[in-house]
Amino acid sequence: MVGRQQPRMQAVNDVSASFPTTSRNRVKRLHERGSYDHAAVFAVLDAGLLCHVAYTFDGQPYCTPTIHWREGDMLYWHGSSASRMLRQLRGGRPACLTVSHLDGLVLARTGFNHSANYRSAMCFGTARIVDEPEEKKKALAKATMVIGMRIEEASAKVRAKGVADDEEDYGHPVWAGVIPVRMVIGAAEPCPRQMPGIERPGNLAGYAEGERLDRALMQAQAVYEGEIS
Amino acid sequence: MVGRQQPRMQAVNDVSASFPTTSRNRVKRLHERGSYDHAAVFAVLDAGLLCHVAYTFDGQPYCTPTIHWREGDMLYWHGSSASRMLRQLRGGRPACLTVSHLDGLVLARTGFNHSANYRSAMCFGTARIVDEPEEKKKALAKATMVIGMRIEEASAKVRAKGVADDEEDYGHPVWAGVIPVRMVIGAAEPCPRQMPGIERPGNLAGYAEGERLDRALMQAQAVYEGEIS
Repeated sequence: MVGRQQPRMQAVNDVSASFPTTSRNRVKRLHERGSYDHAAVFAVLDAGLLCHVAYTFDGQPYCTPTIHWREGDMLYWHGSSASRMLRQLRGGRPACLTVSHLDGLVLARTGFNHSANYRSAMCFGTARIVDEPEEKKKALAKATMVIGMRIEEASAKVRAKGVADDEEDYGHPVWAGVIPVRMVIGAAEPCPRQMPGIERPGNLAGYAEGERLDRALMQAQAVYEGEIS
Repeated sequence: MVGRQQPRMQAVNDVSASFPTTSRNRVKRLHERGSYDHAAVFAVLDAGLLCHVAYTFDGQPYCTPTIHWREGDMLYWHGSSASRMLRQLRGGRPACLTVSHLDGLVLARTGFNHSANYRSAMCFGTARIVDEPEEKKKALAKATMVIGMRIEEASAKVRAKGVADDEEDYGHPVWAGVIPVRMVIGAAEPCPRQMPGIERPGNLAGYAEGERLDRALMQAQAVYEGEIS
């Protein structure tokens, strides 16, 4: 990248704003579930550790799981510097990063009305390798490859309710209801080679046994935003 | 599709086989974590309700969350018949369906060795709208649109171990360990409009409060395979 200035990726953090609605991010199905508010999109992103990123290389789509983090409207995630594919991101490439949370299995009286409770956010933008030293350091001090993308368009989609059967089906004598699910934190397993007398640090208190991971992650994001602002 | 015979999608269920290794599915990074065995790939697929599918339309990659199910080496998932994009799948399009399970946060002594325990499977093939009546009926009686894909290539990747710090770092006086996470089933919430005297059916017994969702789903898949074989 000698002699080439990469565009400065200054994060914008305006939770009262909305993402523009285009043919790319418009929620087509069950659009009453969709939202383009920054706050709604960020809430879904921040509650997840794991995301999936879609890229296209040589006409083949790839759906890659990775770990993301957010700073304002900038998303960052890990890539492998060993990947010949990902090195093609240097010049910037369209990508879509999605975070989804499964919240429940919705069992209706008829198969057609079976559903799931969930929260998801799809974010569109141009993925680039982050190699501006200042930004890379800020994003992750020692990663081999960090990829960044400003969210140009995004939508959040949430279903959070009970069974919605067709009116004529409520009389069917079959069990219907919601089976909720949640990502729960287990008992920490300290490294067997732990130095003696080392306590678990206070900033891990949110990751206590039995707590919900999504809540712990959202709390951690709030602390992070307090530190950088 | 008048006058055009769709290839018959007969599922193959040979768990002792392996998927071919090509440039598309070869696990590039940390390849000791990778596997191409049908059994390893199917175990990851069957343990998940939610998947993410990458498609490309007009050069833009889309990463769409949906619910999948598997019959042998055939994958099926839901699509919206309202989606103009998905109707482009009629003629068949390359796609990548990925299922990922987060199993733990691995906190090392240095940022570079932080990691996650996970299980993931990436499956490559040609996604098509299922409109052969027999297959569609078998796949899902009343869905508006079902998409099917034979898994041509696939890989599973698993990390399931403790902290792996560089040897010289074990003396650092910082807490290191694994914080496990798991998707847990909560107390069922019966529909408030339930008919009186309706019991929860026996085939939902696996989805009991406190059970792990991945295990319940794998059990359900085993029952399903017993029924169709």
